[in-house]
Amino acid sequence: MIKTPFLLSVFVLSYLFPVHAQVTPLYNLVPYVNPFIGTQKMGHTFPGATVPFGSVQLSPDTDTIPMYDENGNYIRDVYAYCAGYQYDDPTIVGFSHTHFSGTGHSDLGDILLMPTVGELKLNPGTADKPASGYRSAYSKDNEAAEPNYYRVLLDDYQVLAELTTTTRVGMHRYTFPATNQAHLILDMVHGIYPYEGKNVWTFLRVENDTLVTGYRMTTGWARTRTVYFAMAFSKPFREYGFHQAKKEPYVGFWRRFDQTSNFPEAAARELRGHFNFEMQEGEKLLVKVAISSVSASGALQNMQTEAPHWDFDRVKKQGQDCWNDELNKVQVETLTEGEKVNFYTSIYHSFLGPTEYMDVDGRYKGLDQEIHQADGFINYTSFSLWDTYRALHPLFNILQPARNRDMIRSMLAHYGQSVHKMLPVWSHYANENWCMIGYHSVSVIADALAKGIGGFDPDQALEACVNTARNQYYDALPLYMELGFVPEDKSSNSASKTLEFAYNDWCIAQVAEALGRTDIYEEFMARSENFKNLFDHETGFMRPRLSDGAFVTDFDPLDTHGQGFIEGNAWNYGLYVPHNLEGLVSLKGGKEKFATFLDELFTMTLPDKYFEQTEDVTREGIIGNYVHGNEPSHHIPFLYYWTDEPWKTQERVRMIGPLMYHPAPDGLGGNDDFGQMSAWYIFNALGFYPVLPGSDQYVIGSPSVVSADVKLENGKVFSVRTVNQSEENVYIMKITLNGKPLDRHYIRHQEITDGGELVFYLGRRPLK
Amino acid sequence: MIKTPFLLSVFVLSYLFPVHAQVTPLYNLVPYVNPFIGTQKMGHTFPGATVPFGSVQLSPDTDTIPMYDENGNYIRDVYAYCAGYQYDDPTIVGFSHTHFSGTGHSDLGDILLMPTVGELKLNPGTADKPASGYRSAYSKDNEAAEPNYYRVLLDDYQVLAELTTTTRVGMHRYTFPATNQAHLILDMVHGIYPYEGKNVWTFLRVENDTLVTGYRMTTGWARTRTVYFAMAFSKPFREYGFHQAKKEPYVGFWRRFDQTSNFPEAAARELRGHFNFEMQEGEKLLVKVAISSVSASGALQNMQTEAPHWDFDRVKKQGQDCWNDELNKVQVETLTEGEKVNFYTSIYHSFLGPTEYMDVDGRYKGLDQEIHQADGFINYTSFSLWDTYRALHPLFNILQPARNRDMIRSMLAHYGQSVHKMLPVWSHYANENWCMIGYHSVSVIADALAKGIGGFDPDQALEACVNTARNQYYDALPLYMELGFVPEDKSSNSASKTLEFAYNDWCIAQVAEALGRTDIYEEFMARSENFKNLFDHETGFMRPRLSDGAFVTDFDPLDTHGQGFIEGNAWNYGLYVPHNLEGLVSLKGGKEKFATFLDELFTMTLPDKYFEQTEDVTREGIIGNYVHGNEPSHHIPFLYYWTDEPWKTQERVRMIGPLMYHPAPDGLGGNDDFGQMSAWYIFNALGFYPVLPGSDQYVIGSPSVVSADVKLENGKVFSVRTVNQSEENVYIMKITLNGKPLDRHYIRHQEITDGGELVFYLGRRPLK
Repeated sequence: MIKTPFLLSVFVLSYLFPVHAQVTPLYNLVPYVNPFIGTQKMGHTFPGATVPFGSVQLSPDTDTIPMYDENGNYIRDVYAYCAGYQYDDPTIVGFSHTHFSGTGHSDLGDILLMPTVGELKLNPGTADKPASGYRSAYSKDNEAAEPNYYRVLLDDYQVLAELTTTTRVGMHRYTFPATNQAHLILDMVHGIYPYEGKNVWTFLRVENDTLVTGYRMTTGWARTRTVYFAMAFSKPFREYGFHQAKKEPYVGFWRRFDQTSNFPEAAARELRGHFNFEMQEGEKLLVKVAISSVSASGALQNMQTEAPHWDFDRVKKQGQDCWNDELNKVQVETLTEGEKVNFYTSIYHSFLGPTEYMDVDGRYKGLDQEIHQADGFINYTSFSLWDTYRALHPLFNILQPARNRDMIRSMLAHYGQSVHKMLPVWSHYANENWCMIGYHSVSVIADALAKGIGGFDPDQALEACVNTARNQYYDALPLYMELGFVPEDKSSNSASKTLEFAYNDWCIAQVAEALGRTDIYEEFMARSENFKNLFDHETGFMRPRLSDGAFVTDFDPLDTHGQGFIEGNAWNYGLYVPHNLEGLVSLKGGKEKFATFLDELFTMTLPDKYFEQTEDVTREGIIGNYVHGNEPSHHIPFLYYWTDEPWKTQERVRMIGPLMYHPAPDGLGGNDDFGQMSAWYIFNALGFYPVLPGSDQYVIGSPSVVSADVKLENGKVFSVRTVNQSEENVYIMKITLNGKPLDRHYIRHQEITDGGELVFYLGRRPLK
Repeated sequence: MIKTPFLLSVFVLSYLFPVHAQVTPLYNLVPYVNPFIGTQKMGHTFPGATVPFGSVQLSPDTDTIPMYDENGNYIRDVYAYCAGYQYDDPTIVGFSHTHFSGTGHSDLGDILLMPTVGELKLNPGTADKPASGYRSAYSKDNEAAEPNYYRVLLDDYQVLAELTTTTRVGMHRYTFPATNQAHLILDMVHGIYPYEGKNVWTFLRVENDTLVTGYRMTTGWARTRTVYFAMAFSKPFREYGFHQAKKEPYVGFWRRFDQTSNFPEAAARELRGHFNFEMQEGEKLLVKVAISSVSASGALQNMQTEAPHWDFDRVKKQGQDCWNDELNKVQVETLTEGEKVNFYTSIYHSFLGPTEYMDVDGRYKGLDQEIHQADGFINYTSFSLWDTYRALHPLFNILQPARNRDMIRSMLAHYGQSVHKMLPVWSHYANENWCMIGYHSVSVIADALAKGIGGFDPDQALEACVNTARNQYYDALPLYMELGFVPEDKSSNSASKTLEFAYNDWCIAQVAEALGRTDIYEEFMARSENFKNLFDHETGFMRPRLSDGAFVTDFDPLDTHGQGFIEGNAWNYGLYVPHNLEGLVSLKGGKEKFATFLDELFTMTLPDKYFEQTEDVTREGIIGNYVHGNEPSHHIPFLYYWTDEPWKTQERVRMIGPLMYHPAPDGLGGNDDFGQMSAWYIFNALGFYPVLPGSDQYVIGSPSVVSADVKLENGKVFSVRTVNQSEENVYIMKITLNGKPLDRHYIRHQEITDGGELVFYLGRRPLK
């Protein structure tokens, strides 16, 4: 008998009898999350099961390798499989335990399981010839996903597969037909972004007839990464075997054993295993897989702590309760049900990472390959910082300040383990992958300090920021320090780097100022003005320069590629001076000319040739020449506030929302980038946006919600209300904060955390 | 100024004024050890520096890969390089930190360093074209070795290289000529028994300009082995670089960095590094390298604990003092100086392994890939048990009972970590390599129990022995249990396996009997009689049988290969029934026929063709048809005691000694096998031998020493004295033990450990 947990009782009561004031009600918001959003086209999300910030993110992989048609023509490259899943794929390879959400490069996909029936197949097969391997066809009608729950009927085997998780444990429930040839495939070769040589080593042990342990060590995006696991079955297997997908050249005295059959230990670069069962009609096989970065015993301890039982529905329910708590942090009313789905799915996507990265006892493998103890904080990994510093970490400072504090402590721990004496750039699983540009940990730190998020040592943080920014070999940084800009002839994407470095330097100056370190403040404020060195008065654009000081020739400010910028052209990325927008506007010729420039950006017709370049610029993600699918433009709609036409910001953001987000699998206009795209949506739905992380200000936009109650960790509630909200009424007539008119284009962080009410009076025509 | 340690003062005083009675004198016996013995031909020893049972065994590698002449003709295969060194090789590749002594298969050779001058070379080059790589020529005149000290002048660079060690730290002292192009090569690819794909992963970090950490993970004989290290320099390097010997297919965003030059982190399958220095004429560069199985920080802790200073001579002295203490455990007088060198070098070789395998804090990586804590014992690794159970572990029960107790605790820890629930067969570095046959841990356990070595749990030990012996898939063991013998058609070397299993089973029975477990005693005593199932009365030999019960046809009892035996033919290995020699003699037709058989064995002329088979049977290791170079024959000279001609044992052992052991690089008649060959010598020099490990008896031989004082850990002294000792006087006229005549052909272990005096009266003609 399962006792109803106290939490559940409270939840049920709250749902039936919502109570206002101190005890805020919990609504059942889980149904408003659609995990399939973003799984079609380039959203790069996954539909599988996970709890908020879960270490295990257990999801179906439909493919992870390039696809070609029967004539060898390219259909889809590995980029489409950053999260292992494409909505339109006809087959499922299996269910693996680790995934990134929304990234534009990838890794992971560890420890794939697949239940099969009949002839044993140990190769995944290919999508065009599914019968060649263990993969299975499935019907979209038989697939469903909710937060912490995924279900699909595997047509080839008539096995119903269900997935749910705790933070560190994936639980599988497979309902079989009657068969004496039921198999569970364990594929240790499978991974996301695979290539010949990605697997470094795998190790497997059958501890007893219901418990298997081991690890998978890979290289690639994370150069040195090991995932340990423990896997338990709800009933003993009948027999099992391990097989080398690629034969090891040395066999030695192991040749004495038939290691392929019922031999309890295997180690090689590329191992696959199978476990055989006899199953009755409708009989369920449950499997628990716990992971660890420390050891198999650490994984086992994680399993024994978080999921000591076999109650799948209880695990599912606990995770969904947890999601419901998180979703209820913002209770919104929207004009349409679809917008509510957009909103809560955005919350869901925003809370998928960074992920918890430590065992239940706080131990984890660090960047230095040593085992560390997270002392008094939760250690997180997977920092996609070039994306997430913009809106996701600022969102955390409102909705998840405790977690964001621990994320910063995790970054500082990373710094302490870094032989480069650098904060994370793009780090995951105890590895720095150096993806993208800048050193945006400093933005996350500055933003937290500006918003009064304590709980970490600010002096240590400043030291980490400064050492990072003074590194003598990181990505053209010495040239930047010497010349005041990154020269394109020495380092590609030089303009983007210069602009991001300059913004980062402003962040460091803010930290220094807060700590009274005038020397550092002045050094980095001076560096933060380096953006000016790139402005070309002749063309009116930020334009890359060469090391001799000359601007590059053959400069095309519409082109995203080879022009000194990355994931953005000069039109878009050239506006990235969030810390000195007055200076930018001045360079651009004043407010009037700047407004005209912005208008042209949003309304021009971009010639076809600019869409034919790479996956990072797609028609779905572009409005005129404004690229919403990539992050450098995310602040642009708000720049009208630095002109005399602020109402155009209100118009733009209300236009962008419905165009770029809709409640369907293809509902994201670009990579979700670990929640940055979703965080943009949340802020804009609420009516404000952190144009300048590192300051305590949010620039006013135009809310799309009817109302919202933001429940803060300090117990207070910050409410957004609208008057005359409708699809047409996008313009702000008046704003009041706690009943008083708000005469500025921003609100301060403390005005949120103090609780209160922000009321937007909306109208159909701009208030010019 | 170096203070004279107290120990040194005591030592000097003791040497000058030897004191008898309770305080026994310490002689300077270090000069009697010649580490070059066994380094020529097939001894497979190494000449480098180590302390007794040291984790680091730091030695020059002259080559580790097969050699061919310029026409591609095979000169020498990898087998010759089991210890990395061949005395006659003209070049030295470098100095690596881990070596096996005397083994017949190999591994290790981790973390090779080589000092060079001039042009930077990162490839070792080949022996026939030494200038093609960083290796150097050297002259035998400029090479010297002592316990814990090795020295060579590297001709190509005019660098004097000196090596010494503590248990876990290798210390290098390189004296350079004046140069601004001094290099230290760090070769992480180099290893013993290398092959394409042996390196699994290597990781390097430059912590600062005098400290480097990292690890090397390999597969091969040890399937999953990782050696972590920390390396410190006595002066900062000027610059450095890391290079992939084999390019990794994935580069990712690391491409931004010039990782080959002054980039402090590297990870790849095959890495080499170099560190550059400017050196004055005669300036010394010291390098310390500590190792660990746990982590780089564990290695660093080992270094900081054992060698916190830069005093090379002090490290050398401490290690040599330690050796002197060990050598003084047996103080002998011999007929010649050469015999004294044989004797003390045998002691030296006997104390090179098993090696200590844990950090200074007791942590080590176990067979299950988990980090374990050695709780109250020293954990050892590298158990070459098929060799060493015969005489080396019995020798430890006299000279190293505390270490042998801990070796047994290490074996039991291995058992606890074994997914196979088996004691070690041939284990090293947290790996079971399954080399050779039988399950001889049980012999080591039984021998220790028979000799009153406590300190481990006998019930746990019995459980481990029984589970090992009942394993359902180990090396034909199920067939042995079913049929009473291993059938040759199912498993090669079946006769050897059957004989070893039967002996092992007798050992288990002894353990069971000691613990009063009659059921187990009877089960295993019955199994121990299985040797009888192989005796073929037609030929008079142990002869392999097939699974249908028939003997194999085309049986050649002289042939070592393909006849059901391993490292021995039926003539030799067929006599391996140490636990029931009466039964063997009876099968062989009684005492008289058996004596004739033994005579023939020692005196026959073995046809040439039997020498042309493999490296394991060489003319150096054979007397007649008696094979001393391999272990299965080591008890044979004593079998005359089971005939009416015991005096022939005395004659044979005095003949074998000088033929098989002499004080020169080619002084060993076969692989030293981690000290088993040397332990045979020590026992025989003292006049007795453990024909049956697992019993408490030593069979009398004929001592070659003039006298010996064996200093026991219990503080007592057991003395061997001879009367009329000479090269001719090999026959025993009389023996007294503590003044009373000894009327049996054996002495008991307790008669040794009680202390006392065994006097051999020798004569020129046998006492028939």
